[in-house]
Amino acid sequence: MEKAVLITIGDEILSGNTIDTNSNFIASELKNIGIKVSQIFTISDEIETIKKTLGEAFELGDLVITTGGLGPTRDDKTKKALAEFFNDEIALDEVTFNHLKEYMERRGRTDILERNREQAFVPTRSTVFQNQYGTAPCMMMEMDGKLCYSLPGVPYEVKPLIKDQIIPYLQEKYSLQYIHTRIVSVVGIPESVLADTIEEWELALPDNIALSYLPVGTRVKLRLTASGDHEAFLQQQVEREIQTLLPLLGDHVIAVSEDKIENILAEILTERKLTISTAESCTGGELAKMLTAVPGSSKYYLGGLVPYATEKKIKILNVSKETVEQFTVVSEQVASEMAKGCQKLFETHISLSTTGVAGPGKGEDGKEIGTVYYTIRINDKEVTSKLYMPHLERLDFMYFVSQKVIQDLVGLLVAQ
Amino acid sequence: MEKAVLITIGDEILSGNTIDTNSNFIASELKNIGIKVSQIFTISDEIETIKKTLGEAFELGDLVITTGGLGPTRDDKTKKALAEFFNDEIALDEVTFNHLKEYMERRGRTDILERNREQAFVPTRSTVFQNQYGTAPCMMMEMDGKLCYSLPGVPYEVKPLIKDQIIPYLQEKYSLQYIHTRIVSVVGIPESVLADTIEEWELALPDNIALSYLPVGTRVKLRLTASGDHEAFLQQQVEREIQTLLPLLGDHVIAVSEDKIENILAEILTERKLTISTAESCTGGELAKMLTAVPGSSKYYLGGLVPYATEKKIKILNVSKETVEQFTVVSEQVASEMAKGCQKLFETHISLSTTGVAGPGKGEDGKEIGTVYYTIRINDKEVTSKLYMPHLERLDFMYFVSQKVIQDLVGLLVAQ
Repeated sequence: MEKAVLITIGDEILSGNTIDTNSNFIASELKNIGIKVSQIFTISDEIETIKKTLGEAFELGDLVITTGGLGPTRDDKTKKALAEFFNDEIALDEVTFNHLKEYMERRGRTDILERNREQAFVPTRSTVFQNQYGTAPCMMMEMDGKLCYSLPGVPYEVKPLIKDQIIPYLQEKYSLQYIHTRIVSVVGIPESVLADTIEEWELALPDNIALSYLPVGTRVKLRLTASGDHEAFLQQQVEREIQTLLPLLGDHVIAVSEDKIENILAEILTERKLTISTAESCTGGELAKMLTAVPGSSKYYLGGLVPYATEKKIKILNVSKETVEQFTVVSEQVASEMAKGCQKLFETHISLSTTGVAGPGKGEDGKEIGTVYYTIRINDKEVTSKLYMPHLERLDFMYFVSQKVIQDLVGLLVAQ
Repeated sequence: MEKAVLITIGDEILSGNTIDTNSNFIASELKNIGIKVSQIFTISDEIETIKKTLGEAFELGDLVITTGGLGPTRDDKTKKALAEFFNDEIALDEVTFNHLKEYMERRGRTDILERNREQAFVPTRSTVFQNQYGTAPCMMMEMDGKLCYSLPGVPYEVKPLIKDQIIPYLQEKYSLQYIHTRIVSVVGIPESVLADTIEEWELALPDNIALSYLPVGTRVKLRLTASGDHEAFLQQQVEREIQTLLPLLGDHVIAVSEDKIENILAEILTERKLTISTAESCTGGELAKMLTAVPGSSKYYLGGLVPYATEKKIKILNVSKETVEQFTVVSEQVASEMAKGCQKLFETHISLSTTGVAGPGKGEDGKEIGTVYYTIRINDKEVTSKLYMPHLERLDFMYFVSQKVIQDLVGLLVAQ
């Protein structure tokens, strides 16, 4: 049990309607128990395609996990394909039917419709893992030492099935090789220069350690993945390599353990007992969301404001009307006054502000789409910067700017 | 030119580190010009795997688009695989090199490193589409009437390449069948009941119209996709089917054109000239972000507050200290007072508030993880609801609650 293959079934993914987040979650959970996903197939909801893909998947790995195609509606054909592929038949499973009935009754739907009853039909040789948060059951088929799980497609049904049932089952059934991953985050050095700088070190890495470069905004994440039989040995081995790497990179390293920049910031703020607040215009809440997405963030994040209308910046944050008139609302001066007002309103050590034009329409004052000013205020010192990114779409713009602001803040705090 | 196959190359996707958003974007852009994505392969960055997958892809479609695997670092092998697959060789392309030089000089990096120079090497028979926002060029190979594009993996480089260069090129080169899509959004009716209700209508649909059910939260989106030679005919045909469908669904229909709930809300608010504001605790800015993600939202969204710390709810929103002490901060009463304070602060017709425990840690007052109260206030009327979703992870919780609040608001506005 080393390699897994994922199959995402659903026309809504192929049509560009829905982003496939299940594969990401499953891959990351499997990685933790040492199972590597070698390929992902995203296919349409057709019996022949599903059967063909199951065949190809089992040539690439011992474990296949499919998501999607198990709902109660007409366009779901996975179960039929599964039964045909494994030369099995579909029959009503009493336990599953009772589970389904209870599930629906708890939700006040006592009318078990024929279509829902069909969901309790499963291949006769399958083992069912009951779905606690939906009506489609999860089925496991086993053949010649190979394993196939078939899950529904709804992300919040997939997550508990994987985490609470499938992962523990796999861990118990197989004795798996251990995987250890560490990420070193580097800023202020272009990827190509970085690659040259650490080339010798990279070439000398042991065979069981793989290195990847993952650029995220202006940061490059170096991911070391080690695999082997002994957990403690791998940890020491990777630690040793990182200790050799660090002197080569000097001040460019901003973190050696946490991965996401908001988690890195959380580490720093918690350690230094600093509080933070946000005042966002063009990022529209993304910055607040990114900070509050970290568990425990209520310890340092006291609050934020999204004063979208200019008059609200003036009224709530005390931005001066004259400043707006003289410099326009998308300006260095307004960003700075917003940060000051925000720091005062929320009484925090640090405050962050953004003001800009996310597009696609031009700003009130005709400022160019993609222009943004942001201020980082730490106690009584502040830095205001400008970004110009006309090529980003609205949501990407909000995300990129928020990432950049947090990144810069981490940079400033680390340099202190 | 009818079917396309996408190949996503990159270990960062397979390892669960990065979510593949490129495929979603490309699929949706291709759909607009009538090209359907029949399959997506997500594979690792290995020459043999890439070559094998290119072969499989060309069996499934005439157009193959790969993303990823074109950076300047050691783990990128796509270009080699491409040249080998097409029996070509790689050589320096002067035009691409000059473009690269100018690109780097504009960014103040006059030191063209050997590694970056390598990026100007392309298969000799390829047509290069220059990348305006990165250093890896986009290459097009043509063979026996089949087309292969190879793009870098960074989303904000992919988007302009697809939108500004590849789509117009394909549109000009081929005369493509027209596609027309409409989405009917339905609430308050379970998917299985819905399927029964419209079964006869569904079975009578013409062969060139396909129907999909896409559940999103408590809403079900019915997507009709029609294909044919004449745009005007398709529009009329789909419109006719929708007019037959609507009487079957009555009040359950909330929208027949826009897709995302925040866009549906935007339609309603703009039409009725209503303004809105938000006060979020447990959703931490997600609600604000969702509303401001809609272009033109500044016309109706006046602002939002994320009063994360309890004392900020009291100070800025005027929530009474006694209410908090008596009912705890995660309560119907506090949600209601937050909405009132928010409406007053931002002077809007509508205000939304959320207070809850996103987990994984318990709330200050020991309230259960997954509990949330939210208030929707429209002028002087308000509704407060409770949700309990202990199974959702923190980010999913923030997203799901925000979707639900907007959905409910749309429901209330439509019912008025």
